[in-house]
Amino acid sequence: MYRNAKNVSYYMIGDGALDQLGELLAPRRDAMPDQPAVFFIDHYFEKTDLVSRLPVQEWDMVLYIDTTNEPTCESVDAYSDKVKKFLNGQKPCALVALGGGSTMDTCKCVGNLLTNPGKATDYQGWDLVKNPAPYKIAVPTISGTGSESSRTGIICNEAKKLKLGMNSDYSMFDQVLLDPRLTASVPRDQYFYTGVDTFMHCFESLSGNYRNTIVDSFAEKALDLSKEVFLSDDMMSDHNRELLMIASFKGGMAAGFVGVVHPLSAGLSMVLGMHHGIANCYALSVLEDIYPEPYKVFMEMLAKQKISLPKGICKNLSPEQYDALYEASIVHEKPLINRLGENYRDILTKENVIERFKRM
Amino acid sequence: MYRNAKNVSYYMIGDGALDQLGELLAPRRDAMPDQPAVFFIDHYFEKTDLVSRLPVQEWDMVLYIDTTNEPTCESVDAYSDKVKKFLNGQKPCALVALGGGSTMDTCKCVGNLLTNPGKATDYQGWDLVKNPAPYKIAVPTISGTGSESSRTGIICNEAKKLKLGMNSDYSMFDQVLLDPRLTASVPRDQYFYTGVDTFMHCFESLSGNYRNTIVDSFAEKALDLSKEVFLSDDMMSDHNRELLMIASFKGGMAAGFVGVVHPLSAGLSMVLGMHHGIANCYALSVLEDIYPEPYKVFMEMLAKQKISLPKGICKNLSPEQYDALYEASIVHEKPLINRLGENYRDILTKENVIERFKRM
Repeated sequence: MYRNAKNVSYYMIGDGALDQLGELLAPRRDAMPDQPAVFFIDHYFEKTDLVSRLPVQEWDMVLYIDTTNEPTCESVDAYSDKVKKFLNGQKPCALVALGGGSTMDTCKCVGNLLTNPGKATDYQGWDLVKNPAPYKIAVPTISGTGSESSRTGIICNEAKKLKLGMNSDYSMFDQVLLDPRLTASVPRDQYFYTGVDTFMHCFESLSGNYRNTIVDSFAEKALDLSKEVFLSDDMMSDHNRELLMIASFKGGMAAGFVGVVHPLSAGLSMVLGMHHGIANCYALSVLEDIYPEPYKVFMEMLAKQKISLPKGICKNLSPEQYDALYEASIVHEKPLINRLGENYRDILTKENVIERFKRM
Repeated sequence: MYRNAKNVSYYMIGDGALDQLGELLAPRRDAMPDQPAVFFIDHYFEKTDLVSRLPVQEWDMVLYIDTTNEPTCESVDAYSDKVKKFLNGQKPCALVALGGGSTMDTCKCVGNLLTNPGKATDYQGWDLVKNPAPYKIAVPTISGTGSESSRTGIICNEAKKLKLGMNSDYSMFDQVLLDPRLTASVPRDQYFYTGVDTFMHCFESLSGNYRNTIVDSFAEKALDLSKEVFLSDDMMSDHNRELLMIASFKGGMAAGFVGVVHPLSAGLSMVLGMHHGIANCYALSVLEDIYPEPYKVFMEMLAKQKISLPKGICKNLSPEQYDALYEASIVHEKPLINRLGENYRDILTKENVIERFKRM
């Protein structure tokens, strides 16, 4: 039995394409007159003039998403309650996400909760969402997570100590707008840490045991593009920012299985609240034996782009914290088996995993 | 102003995936009970047992498409009349195309005519189709044309001496099912001539003046895959047949502008009724000066796969036929400008073009 893979229905790409957001919204507004659009916007933009450039109508909702920490079941439930209260029974003509992975994932998960009863935690897993979500548009303002084209919205479940997505076709965006101008002002470090996520999940997918020819072909291209960008002289040139948006988009379409990087990275996010991109970087920095070639390429990228990854982030943690790091990593069986096989615990003993965190 | 690019909504790929066609049709049958599906099937399969394996219901229509010649406005109008007569005012729950480019393009064009008044010729061009077509599924039985993922359905207009597509989002398939097992029995020559079409339109797109980063990224991957297949020892191995299906699918998604190969190829189709794939091969065989590198790779592919391209196909034609070949080629301004610039007629004089045909 093969899976029927869903694509993002429409995408637009181009420098300055944000100016066409109103045009993309127009058919939605025509189809549902007077019904509000809900804009999910990274709180970073609250004090910028970006919002004044958006096609927001007076009856729309603008919701700033606090991306200090990654989305949690609690944050998603809270935003969902706010939106429901605002809508007061109305159906939104569209949800628009303007931000990075955290903002887009929040929009995806809230979307599912607007048309499905219960709480975020009820839908963490595969194909648990029963009813289609409202129409959604993604406008990424940073590249790399691939949230704009993937079928998951990732949230941390503090109670279950688990970072797990709402994997569903209904989580997917209907329209993606890629405007490389939006990433011009991203700080270099953040641009790197986030952007390199595509590199991470694509090499993990391509070096796994669970494979699929078409997923491979998307991952190979996304990997090539991310290498081209991060091994170039200027990862943030106009051309490279456009290439990285495409790498992210294709990386999200690849949607393959990850490997050892993501579980360790999830541990860092769960226990230390570290953001996904930089957490991946730290994870790969201690996996030279498991991913020798990607490790080498990644070190070259760091050097080429003059990005530092200061050591000692897990120094002086309590024994309980080390235990928690181990537990929150080793729980991700599927990706660990994908790379290391069923006996992954023979290599990733508790001691071995904690030693790796200590080296970060 | 950037174009909003549409994707095929869903795709499934895998050896033997045809067995899941019924499952893909089920939601359509549920949504429109008792409404027939219309199966467009390459006449080649009329005497095979393939049809008995299809989820055809007694109230469905099975329409064999004569692919001896490529689709024309007349053939599309005739099939359209047949389907309308069969439907007798009912709406089809789905149109299913099972065949190569000619069958899929016929299905796409007939689909548009079921919901739009007039004749095929009224919709040859860009974005002339006004109303959405019925839901459509493509099941390619040969790889290369990319019809399964492109927004055009190409038809020959005998009266206007023009080979031109119905370029429209409504021409696109909603669902694609890629089963590499279906291409196992294709004759080697035909597999090559058709399969290499992806190589052709991707290198043409990548060496043109009109470019677009995301189209390039799809075309680059499709080009890599087609080189991998045709420069390998066995282009028809299980793995290579799957890769070529993916190359074709991505090639169709690339949908870039073509160059000089396609206009000359269109000439051969219009005047000699030659099929698109082999016509492209003949066209490139006389374009060594305009595409030196692709020409070299193509010659390597021919040698590697032991495919012959017998010379002399345009020998002993009448002066009127040579004139017609020239006219049906030179009329394609956009692709010719794409490769050669506005002054393309300085290189492609009438004499020069006819000399090329004579060398084929």
